[in-house]
Amino acid sequence: MSKKSNGTLDQRRAKVLLIGGGGVGTIAALNLERGGLASVTVVLRSNYETVNEHGFNIESCDHGSLTGWRPTEVVDRVPIAGEGQWFEYIVCATKNVVDVPPSLTSIIAPAVTPSTVIVLVQNGLNIEKPFLSAFPSNMVLSGVSFMGSSEPQHGHIKHDFNDILVVGAFHNPSVDAVTEEHAARRFVELYSAGGRTKCTYSADVGWTRWRKLIYNACLNPICAITGLDTGRIRLADGVIDGLVRPAIDEIRAAARASGHELPDDITDTITKIPLDMYLPPSMLTDVRKNNFTEFENLLGEPLRAGQALGVPMPTLQVLYHLCQAIQWRNKEAKGMVKIPAKRTYTD
Amino acid sequence: MSKKSNGTLDQRRAKVLLIGGGGVGTIAALNLERGGLASVTVVLRSNYETVNEHGFNIESCDHGSLTGWRPTEVVDRVPIAGEGQWFEYIVCATKNVVDVPPSLTSIIAPAVTPSTVIVLVQNGLNIEKPFLSAFPSNMVLSGVSFMGSSEPQHGHIKHDFNDILVVGAFHNPSVDAVTEEHAARRFVELYSAGGRTKCTYSADVGWTRWRKLIYNACLNPICAITGLDTGRIRLADGVIDGLVRPAIDEIRAAARASGHELPDDITDTITKIPLDMYLPPSMLTDVRKNNFTEFENLLGEPLRAGQALGVPMPTLQVLYHLCQAIQWRNKEAKGMVKIPAKRTYTD
Repeated sequence: MSKKSNGTLDQRRAKVLLIGGGGVGTIAALNLERGGLASVTVVLRSNYETVNEHGFNIESCDHGSLTGWRPTEVVDRVPIAGEGQWFEYIVCATKNVVDVPPSLTSIIAPAVTPSTVIVLVQNGLNIEKPFLSAFPSNMVLSGVSFMGSSEPQHGHIKHDFNDILVVGAFHNPSVDAVTEEHAARRFVELYSAGGRTKCTYSADVGWTRWRKLIYNACLNPICAITGLDTGRIRLADGVIDGLVRPAIDEIRAAARASGHELPDDITDTITKIPLDMYLPPSMLTDVRKNNFTEFENLLGEPLRAGQALGVPMPTLQVLYHLCQAIQWRNKEAKGMVKIPAKRTYTD
Repeated sequence: MSKKSNGTLDQRRAKVLLIGGGGVGTIAALNLERGGLASVTVVLRSNYETVNEHGFNIESCDHGSLTGWRPTEVVDRVPIAGEGQWFEYIVCATKNVVDVPPSLTSIIAPAVTPSTVIVLVQNGLNIEKPFLSAFPSNMVLSGVSFMGSSEPQHGHIKHDFNDILVVGAFHNPSVDAVTEEHAARRFVELYSAGGRTKCTYSADVGWTRWRKLIYNACLNPICAITGLDTGRIRLADGVIDGLVRPAIDEIRAAARASGHELPDDITDTITKIPLDMYLPPSMLTDVRKNNFTEFENLLGEPLRAGQALGVPMPTLQVLYHLCQAIQWRNKEAKGMVKIPAKRTYTD
């Protein structure tokens, strides 16, 4: 069937604005375009010039090797909706550092119209709250991605682990749940059209997100703080039993208190990551590059959620404050906080 | 009075063997020599060649500037007692990394005779245990030093904070306490003879050591893990209230359970360190240089002591395992532990 064979609604290409063409975002854009049901405008920042000139070079476990690939459109700023532009979906695939401005809500605001569906392909808890607050009549979808993909150089995408995406709606009290489910299922349809990825709908957004926190609130900060990757963290003295298991037990207890029962053997999933792959989790990569981490969404939010429900979380509490200190160190190094001058001694 | 004016016991120079001529050890050797009651043989390792050729260059807040200073003798290995050599005191002023061989007891063993008094000018808890075990009939003294001194280059000593040393005896059950006190007071006499330092005798070795753990078990690892110095740790978001105070409360509780009541306002001593000095504690300096830290004596031993007495220490427990992981990272980097090869993919 030709993409433009007729004018019926389900066959026109959905206009998608995708923010953040890094490892995950670029593969999402590629997959949406390849499905033929969406045309994607990608907003780039640091890699804009490279990609605008040369396109993306992609090595993908799902899509093969592509040289000079381009989405429908590449732009260096968020378009203003209404100037001949209108987006059905805005997919946010950037890193989400809520404690460092500008906020993602302010970044996407110019493109948001009353009917725009916002899709957050990002990790952590309560990430929808600023969006529901800034755009109270819009639908906001949850995308939990399990793909492994990075951008070692500008415009070069290395996609190592299959694109698995779980989509559902964050509930907006001003929207009825059936409409939200329809929007989520339609996005699954767009994303699944290419046939190369595993995109599923799940109504239980909370469970899906707590499930992923086993990795992101526990292993991720422990690796970032110690400088050890997923293999070394298992080999190092005392770390699994002294840190990883206690942290996971605390996340499980907080999830349970929040109404989400995670499976008994969930702890073992961490220790089943093949040892000899030596993967750096995202926060470790960030810390190594002196970049900001997503510690507030990945660790701070579940900690606050659990503590508010009376769950003791002593391990995550310490990890949280250490991540907070490391974040501050990077803010100071980047000149975002000023400190008193060093005292000089004439002694 | 000439140093060799007569042969009476109290006027002969005590023979002291000092292990570790870094920042603290060199100032201790200088001070002992300047007092005129001791002759010091200093055992050097990494800086032996430089010092043997040029002596030490010292900038000291207690002793002024000295160029090419030499103790009585500089050697590159521990002398064997009996070959015309005999030492009244062996002063250990090295870093004390008990989890990395060779052990300090094995290093000093050739020089130890039945009457040798071993002086440990080192931090942490239970540091005497391996010595009492290896040398069950010898006296072992505790030296808690508050001096600030470093060796930024081989043979260059920068002594910034006054040499305050608190000396007492670790009790050896096979030695009577009066003899131990005598040995400790005699060392205080040797050390005080120069008149430029504050060396005092204290019978309460345990209290003195727990007191210093407020700094060494709490601030030191928190700075090392976060990469922040003593000034920045006070400025960073959430660290004092979220980490430092809880850690100090745990050390105070463990000290109390061990019979040592630390003053109520002890927590404030940390926050009274002048902010704008931005000092890196020893473990931070070690971590920055990828050197091993003394985390087992500074943090592991008080943690185990407190936990054995039923004291909850959740903050220090997490800090301990993080330090343990960082130590492992350095062991792996130095080839002291082997890990499976990284998997290669042909995909």
